[in-house]
Amino acid sequence: MSVARAIVICVGDELVDGSQKDMNGPLLSRVAEEVGHEVVGRLLITDNRHEIARAISRARTDRIDLLLISGGLGLTIDDLTREGVADGLGTELELDPEALRRISERYSERGRELPPGARRQCMRPEGAQTLPNPVGVAPGFLVHDGPLTLIALPGVPRESEAMLERSVLPALRAAGGDVEEPAIARMLVVGLRESEVHTRVNHCLKDARDIKLGFFAGSGEVEVVLCQSGPSEELARGDLSAAVEQLKGPLGAHLLEIRLAGCAGDPMREVASESDPLVRAVRDAMRNRCNTLAVAESCTGGLLAARITKLAGSSSFFVGGVVAYANHEKEALLGVHETLLRSCGAVSASVARAMAEGCRDTMGADLAISTTGIAGPAGGTIDKPVGLVYVAVSQEGETRVSRHLFPGERESVRRWAVSSALDEARRLLLGLPLLGAAVDE
Amino acid sequence: MSVARAIVICVGDELVDGSQKDMNGPLLSRVAEEVGHEVVGRLLITDNRHEIARAISRARTDRIDLLLISGGLGLTIDDLTREGVADGLGTELELDPEALRRISERYSERGRELPPGARRQCMRPEGAQTLPNPVGVAPGFLVHDGPLTLIALPGVPRESEAMLERSVLPALRAAGGDVEEPAIARMLVVGLRESEVHTRVNHCLKDARDIKLGFFAGSGEVEVVLCQSGPSEELARGDLSAAVEQLKGPLGAHLLEIRLAGCAGDPMREVASESDPLVRAVRDAMRNRCNTLAVAESCTGGLLAARITKLAGSSSFFVGGVVAYANHEKEALLGVHETLLRSCGAVSASVARAMAEGCRDTMGADLAISTTGIAGPAGGTIDKPVGLVYVAVSQEGETRVSRHLFPGERESVRRWAVSSALDEARRLLLGLPLLGAAVDE
Repeated sequence: MSVARAIVICVGDELVDGSQKDMNGPLLSRVAEEVGHEVVGRLLITDNRHEIARAISRARTDRIDLLLISGGLGLTIDDLTREGVADGLGTELELDPEALRRISERYSERGRELPPGARRQCMRPEGAQTLPNPVGVAPGFLVHDGPLTLIALPGVPRESEAMLERSVLPALRAAGGDVEEPAIARMLVVGLRESEVHTRVNHCLKDARDIKLGFFAGSGEVEVVLCQSGPSEELARGDLSAAVEQLKGPLGAHLLEIRLAGCAGDPMREVASESDPLVRAVRDAMRNRCNTLAVAESCTGGLLAARITKLAGSSSFFVGGVVAYANHEKEALLGVHETLLRSCGAVSASVARAMAEGCRDTMGADLAISTTGIAGPAGGTIDKPVGLVYVAVSQEGETRVSRHLFPGERESVRRWAVSSALDEARRLLLGLPLLGAAVDE
Repeated sequence: MSVARAIVICVGDELVDGSQKDMNGPLLSRVAEEVGHEVVGRLLITDNRHEIARAISRARTDRIDLLLISGGLGLTIDDLTREGVADGLGTELELDPEALRRISERYSERGRELPPGARRQCMRPEGAQTLPNPVGVAPGFLVHDGPLTLIALPGVPRESEAMLERSVLPALRAAGGDVEEPAIARMLVVGLRESEVHTRVNHCLKDARDIKLGFFAGSGEVEVVLCQSGPSEELARGDLSAAVEQLKGPLGAHLLEIRLAGCAGDPMREVASESDPLVRAVRDAMRNRCNTLAVAESCTGGLLAARITKLAGSSSFFVGGVVAYANHEKEALLGVHETLLRSCGAVSASVARAMAEGCRDTMGADLAISTTGIAGPAGGTIDKPVGLVYVAVSQEGETRVSRHLFPGERESVRRWAVSSALDEARRLLLGLPLLGAAVDE
């Protein structure tokens, strides 16, 4: 059976010209995927009735199975999604008296008169089903046209999210009895360049042609997404598990986390998640070994502390940090000897070690991480080029220092340094080899 | 003369399914607008040759004047934009020997062999002009087809930005001789919620109906973009200047910077700029008053230092910071008295003051900024709710403390606190009133 195909359309001048971020598009795409559709495209169009109609009519020509459209359901004359959809489907708009009754009640409860455009908001294409809006005024609608299911939602993310959760997802899940749901695995890889992850994964899975791969790279972190739709969900899951197992060897200690998703997973929850797997991994590895963490930063300039403290609840293990940008601060706050700074230079393995050990002392922490390096754009030399960073991790009785050369410009170097510093801490705690090159001082 | 119409297409599975943010789309839209086109739609499509071809062929049917497409120019077999474009234009691909020579040189300079897909990267539709990539490997191309100009760029934002600046914009400007270019003003507003900025701007400009407004909001910072196309460029500029003048009163000390763009202005510099107006404003206001800056952070957890050090060259004025997350660090590193912490609590005006003054002492800086507050999600009480933040700024002989209540969740509160802390420093240095509520301790 062929996979069902979906497109997502977000309507709004402000989305097209980029003055407002498209928040709904990614969410709607993920929803469509989670109910078993392949999203073949996302479209941002202006508040133009004719453009909307053309997009709808093309979706019919292209035999799209699911069309999710958001925006343009408000009460001003700019809001033309209802009209555009009706034109595109070759049908008329009709009033939903029940929706009008609900909206009228809402206004009268607040002692306000029904505004002129409110009646328009209760129009829907003939044969459509109204989707109530639990957190706002504008209702949405769902309409079938041959194989196409079209769902229109308001543009306000809070409203569309609530409607997806309450009415759209249940309806799509109920309707999609025979739609196969793809099995999805997400593998988070730390400390390898994207091209290297590509090579290892593609080489390892070169025979697993049914698995669709995605690579999402940050600085120092790559998420590999494996997606498989098999003849049955059970079979797909089996194949996917086998592929994940196969990848464990080539990715080795770089593999930080594996997450499996499918029909049971809630797409909404993943999109909203802000939790940081690498910081969580350090926190979890600390348990039973170290109670408290502190950091001493030079080239990362606060970014390491900022990333750790982004995690809600980080105050339970993170005590604080020192951003020792000037040499004077390295001496005054971390006790790094002036002679060491003079003989080795601030960017050196010895200073990284002294910073981490000094930080542990000053802050009274069980574990300390330090960074010193050259983020650029200025300051690089032949011996110490832009991108050179030393990371030290120190715990009771043991300090490990590693040398790194990170790619890209200032912010890239800083971000790579932060994720590598966290990873060196994880590796020390778990007894894994260093990520960077070990340094003999 | 009718306005020229543009569409923007971004290619990539990861963009369609939302697992990666579309960075190029808004940039390309802005570029198209800046050279006088109306962007009628933005399209995100998967790495599918057939879908790409269909989108191109529809742009031809729709008599689009400018098509900007990014992504899918890499060397792996997933990268199918070249093939899709050629199919859509009904033409063939040809090799650009000059591009191949350049790529080969690049690899041999680094002592690496030419990878298998590199030759494919040097293919372009017949009759196209290759656009060199100054910061990466994949070249782009520009091709004319009747009234349509099609420009293909790599998906990596750093590369597409560089190419827009070096070759695309000059080419479009040269070609667009008779296209009227809108006059644009960007006003950066600090310390007001977006809704408040909306209200003030709309009220002030309610009669200036020809001016198109855009609002781009971060936490604590809103960029207002005013765009006007008049019957002549000179007239448009005059109207725009008048509008900017009118807004100065209502925005007051919240107005940080005004930038004017047009045919002479380079939109790329502004879009691609990583330089931070607020940090620059603090640096500039320090001149002749204070030489060195240090920070003491509690609730912002390193984010303030990270933002300052993101600015290249910040080491010329920023000496360092302390992230005093635990109370013990506030005592040990900043000399905040334990009795003060016990009597007032860590989140208090008195502790903010003691942190800033202690920071100036410890770090030997002329100017110090401190933050202490409740970022959430936990830790809020009725007296001290989530979002409550005290900011202190201290220079020789003067410390000012202000109280703020910031909106949103953990990361929003942290970001608001950072921009407000920087703004309080700017205001102290320039003799402006406090942004937050002054606190009597």
